Amino acid sequence: MKRDELYLGVDLGGVNVRAAVVDATGHVLGQEKHRLLSKEPPQVAEAVLRAAKTACGAAGMPFSEMKAMGLGVAGLIDREQGLVRSAPTLGWRDVPFIKLLQARTPRTPLWIASELSVSAWGERAVGAGRGANDLIVVLVGSNIGAGIVMAGKLYEGAAGAAGELGHIQVVPNGRNCSCGQRGCLEAYAGGQNLAAWARDDLRIAMAAARAGGQRYPAVGRKLLDLVGEPDKMTVSAMEKAAHEGDELSTRLLDEAGRLLGIALANLVTMLNPARLLLGGGVLLGSPRMTRAAISGVEAHATKSSRAVLQISAPELGEQAGVVGAALLARESLSAAA
Amino acid sequence: MKRDELYLGVDLGGVNVRAAVVDATGHVLGQEKHRLLSKEPPQVAEAVLRAAKTACGAAGMPFSEMKAMGLGVAGLIDREQGLVRSAPTLGWRDVPFIKLLQARTPRTPLWIASELSVSAWGERAVGAGRGANDLIVVLVGSNIGAGIVMAGKLYEGAAGAAGELGHIQVVPNGRNCSCGQRGCLEAYAGGQNLAAWARDDLRIAMAAARAGGQRYPAVGRKLLDLVGEPDKMTVSAMEKAAHEGDELSTRLLDEAGRLLGIALANLVTMLNPARLLLGGGVLLGSPRMTRAAISGVEAHATKSSRAVLQISAPELGEQAGVVGAALLARESLSAAA
Repeated sequence: MKRDELYLGVDLGGVNVRAAVVDATGHVLGQEKHRLLSKEPPQVAEAVLRAAKTACGAAGMPFSEMKAMGLGVAGLIDREQGLVRSAPTLGWRDVPFIKLLQARTPRTPLWIASELSVSAWGERAVGAGRGANDLIVVLVGSNIGAGIVMAGKLYEGAAGAAGELGHIQVVPNGRNCSCGQRGCLEAYAGGQNLAAWARDDLRIAMAAARAGGQRYPAVGRKLLDLVGEPDKMTVSAMEKAAHEGDELSTRLLDEAGRLLGIALANLVTMLNPARLLLGGGVLLGSPRMTRAAISGVEAHATKSSRAVLQISAPELGEQAGVVGAALLARESLSAAA
Repeated sequence: MKRDELYLGVDLGGVNVRAAVVDATGHVLGQEKHRLLSKEPPQVAEAVLRAAKTACGAAGMPFSEMKAMGLGVAGLIDREQGLVRSAPTLGWRDVPFIKLLQARTPRTPLWIASELSVSAWGERAVGAGRGANDLIVVLVGSNIGAGIVMAGKLYEGAAGAAGELGHIQVVPNGRNCSCGQRGCLEAYAGGQNLAAWARDDLRIAMAAARAGGQRYPAVGRKLLDLVGEPDKMTVSAMEKAAHEGDELSTRLLDEAGRLLGIALANLVTMLNPARLLLGGGVLLGSPRMTRAAISGVEAHATKSSRAVLQISAPELGEQAGVVGAALLARESLSAAA
């Protein structure tokens, strides 16, 4: 290992900034995670640098030896302009983040992409996507998005907006989505929306029970026992209740999984990837929904696209972002050289 | 123009073979179209060579001066193996067509891809996709498929099966599709299926009229006047009838256009192309369905993906395939060099 081949990877979410020193093989030599104390762009730039320098300290290497720094930001990125077009969890719109950061570290080559893109690249480099030239990583959390690697290259679309799987329409005139549309996948299978759907259905069942002079709702009683009150709904509680035979939880997890499965099947049919990685908090918390989604792909994707497809979970967890960001920064240096 | 920079492009469908001599700028210097007299692979290989040589004659250039020959075949292609995996209109499965052809012209570098891929490349090089690095060409005929160019490269998937837009599921448990699945886009918006749908609905309306002692069906009367009998149904007749206020035709064209629109919107949301070209016989024959599809994209694709999107018709018509095939053969030579 040459000492001069070290890169910084940064994963900037709405709550935390994570930084790591990564070598050319994707090995993490030191890392740091900070909670963001402010979401003001200049303060966030300072926090990124602080985390990066602490990660260097943890790796026992000076910051000045880092060849480049790659960032993954949870949002829509204009890479050429170094602009964060929108990052809802940070409350940012059109923030020239690379400029802010470059002013504070003029000699470090910087590189930026979306968190989904860098995570997909990390999995492709050293995780569950190793060796796959055509790879889609789908993360289902509060939001649903996909990182896309095609023909061995990161694919982000003409305006960096590719991969918005959560906002494809799966139900005509369906449930309202936060994006202003109706019937988006995320309105059903996104974590907060799925929990809200269960909460609403449970409230209806409880109201119906009360109106009929019953103490317990006809469906969802186990779910109610687990959460105590509908407002404390979580996908994990739904999973547990479904496992114990709760009808309401079973129906909603299966329906969310079915819609996710059709969306994924259509994606596989169109793009014919070699690998599909399914992760994110909601799927981690609900094996039932994951199974339903995988069944959907197996039932509905074309035979020729399924023939080469492997479906699995990501391997790197929260480290996918920092590793991918560092390695993409490395790629961009060698492409520029 | 250097005389030595000439390429052959071949477009092999189930009925015709078309060949053209194309220069490095995509200009066609001579071409030929043969009807296939046999679908036996060796005979088809002979027919391809005959058409190619005739095209050379038309261009006034000897076949031996052609730098390479590119082929687009209507089917699923394994490019690395030079194999036509399946070509339904030719009735082929796993035909080693490049081997057959190479045996007949040992010194010509050969290159093969799907007809959709070469057409997309032709439009990108010298047609309505000029200058776009991220481009999707959707052709709606009896079949529905997409040619995909991403980040300036043809994208065909891990097994050459990308772009099967006709077989994404748009209606759960919907109409039967020839692929064995139900509810595929092609089962509604593919030309033959759309006509069959209208034929069936018209027959039902006619049976209902007869049962009620009426001479004319309550809906579809204009359509019936135009086609004479339900079995002679065409999409063009539906378009004409819809234009004259026929309810049945209007409903079906709008519904097929709506489903196509959602499929396209979801594709645009996922891939964020700069250009979407909509063509093929069905859309050429039905401006009404085309409008419905475009409205669907405008209504349902994410705002960020729509921001950069231009939708138009292909420009090259039937020449897109031969031009794209020739230019892709050229690319592959320079990549190999």
